Amino acid sequence: MAPLCSLLFNTAVIYLCLILKGVICKDTSAINKQIEQVYEYQDIANKIINFTTIGKGKGQVYTRLADFVDTFGSRIAGSKNLENAIDYMLNTMKKAGLENVHGENVTVPHWVRGNESATMLEPRHYKIAMMGLGSSIGTPEQGLTAEVLVVHSFDELTKKADQAKGKIVVFNQGYEGYPTSVAYRDYSAKETAKVGGVASLIRSVASFSIHSPHTGWQDYDDNIKKIPTACITVEDAEMLDRMANRGTKIVIRLKMDAKNLPPVTSRNTVAEIRGSKYPDEVVLISGHLDSWDVGQGAMDDGGGAFISWQALSIMQQLGLRPKRTVRAVLWTAEEVGLVGSQQYYQRHKVNISNYDFVMESDMGTFKPYGIQFKGSQDATAVMKEVVSLLSSINATTLSDDPEGGDVSFWIQNGVPGGSLLNENQRYFWFHHSDGDTMSVQSSYEMDLCVAVWTVVTYVIADLDEMLPR
Amino acid sequence: MAPLCSLLFNTAVIYLCLILKGVICKDTSAINKQIEQVYEYQDIANKIINFTTIGKGKGQVYTRLADFVDTFGSRIAGSKNLENAIDYMLNTMKKAGLENVHGENVTVPHWVRGNESATMLEPRHYKIAMMGLGSSIGTPEQGLTAEVLVVHSFDELTKKADQAKGKIVVFNQGYEGYPTSVAYRDYSAKETAKVGGVASLIRSVASFSIHSPHTGWQDYDDNIKKIPTACITVEDAEMLDRMANRGTKIVIRLKMDAKNLPPVTSRNTVAEIRGSKYPDEVVLISGHLDSWDVGQGAMDDGGGAFISWQALSIMQQLGLRPKRTVRAVLWTAEEVGLVGSQQYYQRHKVNISNYDFVMESDMGTFKPYGIQFKGSQDATAVMKEVVSLLSSINATTLSDDPEGGDVSFWIQNGVPGGSLLNENQRYFWFHHSDGDTMSVQSSYEMDLCVAVWTVVTYVIADLDEMLPR
Repeated sequence: MAPLCSLLFNTAVIYLCLILKGVICKDTSAINKQIEQVYEYQDIANKIINFTTIGKGKGQVYTRLADFVDTFGSRIAGSKNLENAIDYMLNTMKKAGLENVHGENVTVPHWVRGNESATMLEPRHYKIAMMGLGSSIGTPEQGLTAEVLVVHSFDELTKKADQAKGKIVVFNQGYEGYPTSVAYRDYSAKETAKVGGVASLIRSVASFSIHSPHTGWQDYDDNIKKIPTACITVEDAEMLDRMANRGTKIVIRLKMDAKNLPPVTSRNTVAEIRGSKYPDEVVLISGHLDSWDVGQGAMDDGGGAFISWQALSIMQQLGLRPKRTVRAVLWTAEEVGLVGSQQYYQRHKVNISNYDFVMESDMGTFKPYGIQFKGSQDATAVMKEVVSLLSSINATTLSDDPEGGDVSFWIQNGVPGGSLLNENQRYFWFHHSDGDTMSVQSSYEMDLCVAVWTVVTYVIADLDEMLPR
Repeated sequence: MAPLCSLLFNTAVIYLCLILKGVICKDTSAINKQIEQVYEYQDIANKIINFTTIGKGKGQVYTRLADFVDTFGSRIAGSKNLENAIDYMLNTMKKAGLENVHGENVTVPHWVRGNESATMLEPRHYKIAMMGLGSSIGTPEQGLTAEVLVVHSFDELTKKADQAKGKIVVFNQGYEGYPTSVAYRDYSAKETAKVGGVASLIRSVASFSIHSPHTGWQDYDDNIKKIPTACITVEDAEMLDRMANRGTKIVIRLKMDAKNLPPVTSRNTVAEIRGSKYPDEVVLISGHLDSWDVGQGAMDDGGGAFISWQALSIMQQLGLRPKRTVRAVLWTAEEVGLVGSQQYYQRHKVNISNYDFVMESDMGTFKPYGIQFKGSQDATAVMKEVVSLLSSINATTLSDDPEGGDVSFWIQNGVPGGSLLNENQRYFWFHHSDGDTMSVQSSYEMDLCVAVWTVVTYVIADLDEMLPR
């Protein structure tokens, strides 16, 4: 090797080593510094927890949510009722002195249920409890009367395709967990139409039932004929299945006035506590304000929306203003396909580098265990310390796989994201049914959720640096 | 003491001692003999248990009950449907070769629900889920519209008597166990009428709710004005309570077509296996065949009626004919006030000395633990040994305080009586609601109940002596 070459090589190696050292040391020290900074928040965390669970904030969120859902009831996208509820939230949050309170327009689907019924005419006269599925078309005015074919899966339907023509297909698909079984709510209509069926009735996607239908959105395929579709109770699906097993001929008359009207304008509801130092950097917390048109939407997702509002309210009441802006967004039109959050993402994604951390709570506000989190290894290390601040209320678990939902667009594009880990084993007992009311909520447990939501949000928003990506 | 006197005294003492000895020795030896005899039934008990739970009898009772309730649905007293169901049972049991199968006429009340609704008009329009209570009168055709007074107890109603005039009184009475809380279903109408209220709505008497109303019989007082009365869901009672607490004016329009029609003739359904040695002596097992006019009446009391039929069926299939007659009685019109069983008692009480043992199952046919029993100390000692024959299925518990119900008339008059001790903690989740369907029943658990019912019945009916009183 020539001397010049050797010199250049050695210099390059030295520089490379220095660069690598710089990267490694800088990273390690930055994360350690951030983790050490988190420790300093234990007093503030305790202050938030005490204020929320035994202090002046105790019971506030439950009372506020009860006032809200009792006043407005259910709030489906497209309804005047949802817009009135949004107006109420905007006015209430403005009056309370939150900052930058405003609505952001969203174009949303407008499906209306109308009157509906399913009557078994053979082997005996029986009124079947049912609910049309969101986006379903209606039946002819006189209803639609047809013999029933009962199946347990799409595979079975395919095998029995020659028996399906002209039939109402009943899916008694069992329950294998929501993410799996919801496919029958989503696709039963199009799969039934493919084989010539005239309507589909699915067993409600619920883990337990006391004769409640559980509605939800469903998806047509534009290339396949649209047919009416509804859910029935677990109990009736099982009865029809037993009847079919005995070889009994079953005839049902289905009547649905359901209509898909032109889209209307709704709003995402936004409120903030502006950051003291980096007001353009944002920690976003959220839940959705719309619900199905049954029950009160107290659990899905009144709870999630209201702990997000309440986190701002607690900071305000305690005079806590973090360095970064905390923004609560109460999404509209989640139930009809994440419509509000999707349009929000499209509008704001240009500023994605300013989004420090995004969260949604949409899987219950029962007893909290901690946070479900997705982020880099470094961000996870920091978050682990953040939830450790919640040891006095036993909510220190950091698990992976946050629900995503309305904030999934941000998480998929690299923003650290979280959701509320809580004791929600009974969530699908009530989900999308008349059973979703204040009676499933506990004031005490909601306070604990608020404490978790507020501590995590405030600390992340107040750290010197944004969470590492 | 004179010699004669002394002689007489000593003789008297000796006789008294002999008599006492005779009584004591005779009793003790008789009971011991009966207990020893019970031990000899372990092989037969095992045979019954095996046949019912893993043999040819496995699943029979569930299948039979499902066929029955799917075919007839709910079966309220006074309805044609109940009489059709009774005909079906008589025909089926005759065809199966059971003995002395017959109906015994009973005069029963004939209440019909008709259309009904409760609509909240203020503070917002909301359809309240409701069910009229049995025996309630209807409202005027155009309905009855009135402001609401919410109370939590009869005491509170008394205190607020001056606010009740012209109001619909809503009772949000909490749940303190069925025997206590059912008082509000029974008496809310008459207590409301006393203070000038125009109708009463009670919180359903249920230990858990997913927005289900739970109906049931209610009692007017002939000296107090009759007003319409209905149940609403736990959730809605709590909502109305919260609204009232806020000082919100609530107005409800109640519409009920309910009618009390003239009594009609129904039947208790009777079937037997005649005793081989003492055919006039009877072990009576029972459940009721009528139900409320909602749900399927699968739990209340299809299960109890069908394990009683099935006990006969199992004996028949195994060729077991006990010394005494085993009589299954499937009561009519239990739900409207133990009407069928009361008339049966009046007709048959002349033979009460021939009734060895009476049982009813009307509190669920879930996983059995044993028998609830009431009888003399001696009878209890014998029964304890009888249930010990059930150790292979862990159903050896003998507890006191049987439910009574339809067989209470016999028990109150000294006949040893029992009921099924079972894992019925969720019974009042489904009771008298649309949730009472086959979906709450388990084929496996019903087989276990049949095994308990059959072993206990057969052994008692086959002992050399009747149970001591």
